[in-house]
Amino acid sequence: MSAAVSPLAPKSYPEMPAVRGVRMATAAAGIKYKNRTDVLLMVFDEPASVAGVFTKSKCPSAPVDFCRANLAQGVARAVVVNSGNANAFTGVKGRAATELTGKSAAEAVGCAANEVFLASTGVIGEPLDATKFAGVLGQMNTDAKGDFWQEAAKAIMTTDTYPKVATRTAEIGGVTVTINGIAKGAGMIAPDMATMLSFVVTDADIAPTALQALLAAGVGPTFNSVTVDSDTSTSDTLMLFATGAARADGQVRIETAEDSRLGSFREALNDVLKDLALQVVRDGEGARKMVEITVTGAENDAAAKKIALSIANSPLVKTAVAGEDANWGRVVMAVGKSGEMADRDRLAIWFGHVRVAVNGERDADYSEAEATAVMKNQDIPVKVDIGLGNGTATVWTCDLTKEYVEINGDYRS
Amino acid sequence: MSAAVSPLAPKSYPEMPAVRGVRMATAAAGIKYKNRTDVLLMVFDEPASVAGVFTKSKCPSAPVDFCRANLAQGVARAVVVNSGNANAFTGVKGRAATELTGKSAAEAVGCAANEVFLASTGVIGEPLDATKFAGVLGQMNTDAKGDFWQEAAKAIMTTDTYPKVATRTAEIGGVTVTINGIAKGAGMIAPDMATMLSFVVTDADIAPTALQALLAAGVGPTFNSVTVDSDTSTSDTLMLFATGAARADGQVRIETAEDSRLGSFREALNDVLKDLALQVVRDGEGARKMVEITVTGAENDAAAKKIALSIANSPLVKTAVAGEDANWGRVVMAVGKSGEMADRDRLAIWFGHVRVAVNGERDADYSEAEATAVMKNQDIPVKVDIGLGNGTATVWTCDLTKEYVEINGDYRS
Repeated sequence: MSAAVSPLAPKSYPEMPAVRGVRMATAAAGIKYKNRTDVLLMVFDEPASVAGVFTKSKCPSAPVDFCRANLAQGVARAVVVNSGNANAFTGVKGRAATELTGKSAAEAVGCAANEVFLASTGVIGEPLDATKFAGVLGQMNTDAKGDFWQEAAKAIMTTDTYPKVATRTAEIGGVTVTINGIAKGAGMIAPDMATMLSFVVTDADIAPTALQALLAAGVGPTFNSVTVDSDTSTSDTLMLFATGAARADGQVRIETAEDSRLGSFREALNDVLKDLALQVVRDGEGARKMVEITVTGAENDAAAKKIALSIANSPLVKTAVAGEDANWGRVVMAVGKSGEMADRDRLAIWFGHVRVAVNGERDADYSEAEATAVMKNQDIPVKVDIGLGNGTATVWTCDLTKEYVEINGDYRS
Repeated sequence: MSAAVSPLAPKSYPEMPAVRGVRMATAAAGIKYKNRTDVLLMVFDEPASVAGVFTKSKCPSAPVDFCRANLAQGVARAVVVNSGNANAFTGVKGRAATELTGKSAAEAVGCAANEVFLASTGVIGEPLDATKFAGVLGQMNTDAKGDFWQEAAKAIMTTDTYPKVATRTAEIGGVTVTINGIAKGAGMIAPDMATMLSFVVTDADIAPTALQALLAAGVGPTFNSVTVDSDTSTSDTLMLFATGAARADGQVRIETAEDSRLGSFREALNDVLKDLALQVVRDGEGARKMVEITVTGAENDAAAKKIALSIANSPLVKTAVAGEDANWGRVVMAVGKSGEMADRDRLAIWFGHVRVAVNGERDADYSEAEATAVMKNQDIPVKVDIGLGNGTATVWTCDLTKEYVEINGDYRS
């Protein structure tokens, strides 16, 4: 963990209300870190609907395999998350560790092992000693309480410099429901699903298939539109749980994602996902600047996103931002290398409100001083119009600084 | 330009013999740099066969467009290269600059404008004042001489810390021919065709179509297998010229690339290309370590290359190398994110001679001290066996250091 909090951290944290139907506890099991919590237990006293999206890595971690298998059931009673060790590329031992943890959690909360979900984050390739926290889950279940979101977010941090929480409310058929989420992630962050763990819980009553459809749709313009370093973790996990406790207020269960009563909920959910995803970028390892890249006029939306990510992942663009240099030539380079249709002579580029290039050359009215002033801000909007079609996309990234190199050149020591 | 020469620079430079049929001169036109040469003129007194491969950027520079158009002719009489300004994304002015330069060079050497080839490297998006060097080409033609390869390599440098030259000899039907090459490039280096200019000249007599086939085949395992930062320039240009002067020794013109007399030449050409390509990596911006990544056992060669490039371009792998950290977990991550077929439980990974992982977990016999000793070297071989098929590939890259960030956060100032 870095000592100092990212300069891009939110200036204030929201009060996180309890969400009916979920209790949480943390413990310091000493998996890697000293003097801090590193295990989180979430308990659903009544079976909750569950949805999840995971890394697209061809070499996923053991916990990702475990969750994918259990997701078919659609029901969750417990979640165990640890930081410090990713339990990835740990072979047979890794599977044994997930089995042991699943079994221990099931015993602790009194459920079936396939109603347990797991996530691990930290170093890859080191065996995870699951006995370290398996023994404490019973006590954690006893201690678990609803008003514990900030502590939960802290327990899952690795190189994060601040805990990431978000909350919104929505209405379903006149009944108010709450959506709370936590996330961790600071490096190895790239679509799809960064080195990123996130757990979102609502008290709404929504069937698992509907929940999965809502999550799958919500992740595209949020978690799958952020990148810190283009590296994709073996452990990326985003899970959404619906406890159904709002039934007590008369909320009628939602069975499909097409249900018209979901309008407010969908919006609030996507807000939570975007809020958390952007907090991850704002905590990008070594980040000093947040960059919002909007591409318009591409052949289609998919092309726009590919171009936007090509810009966002370019080391030369990211170092220019770090150097407060309005180097739009590198933006052109990144558009060109994306492989998507582009016509040099139709491109236009803006840094903030300053149009620096138009029709394939430098804007005649462009003031270097004005552009440089934009680059001195913490938040830098970059817009690129391709001039060919109606495709649009927005992605978020951070700058590439010496501190990123420092953090990652010295991670295991 | 960085002040210090890369620690990975070759310990000695070869004596570069003259190649019959080509003369060169340089000039200091003050395009961007002060007190150094920045224009190179190559003259072929007799028409030379010409072949070329260029950036795959969708936004190529004006000189790339110019060369592509002239390549159809297959004949070269002059090459003009400048550093300091890439003449890329310069719109109508960019095209005007190439027209003026082509015309001026044609007048200077007495040829048609479509027998002239151009390349520019440096800042993107700034208009290039071609009048600065158009006027000096006549005198350069008068001064041009054959024994001038080191000077030629120096004139085309940008952030390079040393000039890149290579030479080999070959035999074609009993006649000895020479192949000389120069290159520049240090950042914005990625397949296909890095921010990289390279000009290779032989005195062999080879028809343009055969020359193009030889170059296209040779570039795959050489220039298209190196990466510094995954960024692809708008200006990448690799050209191969055959002056045909070896006719004087009785060399019979080669008409097709399948000609069996080309064995020795093909090998020597590929050696020159590899030599130059690796010199580009060794001069990677801020580089302190050279990494050779070999992937075996992939589904096929294309899959192996995609996996190898995923490893080579991973910021987390590259920062680990910078930190002398044998962090093979990040190699697994990069294999997983490549999208190519992989089975976690079949992977094996070596740093140098040290096998650190096998069958999906840490090698039981692996010594961290031994692996760390490998990481302390300047040249670090990394091998990954996917365990699925017979596909292999080797690519080369360098580490990602704070100096890379420094150089590129401050390039335009």
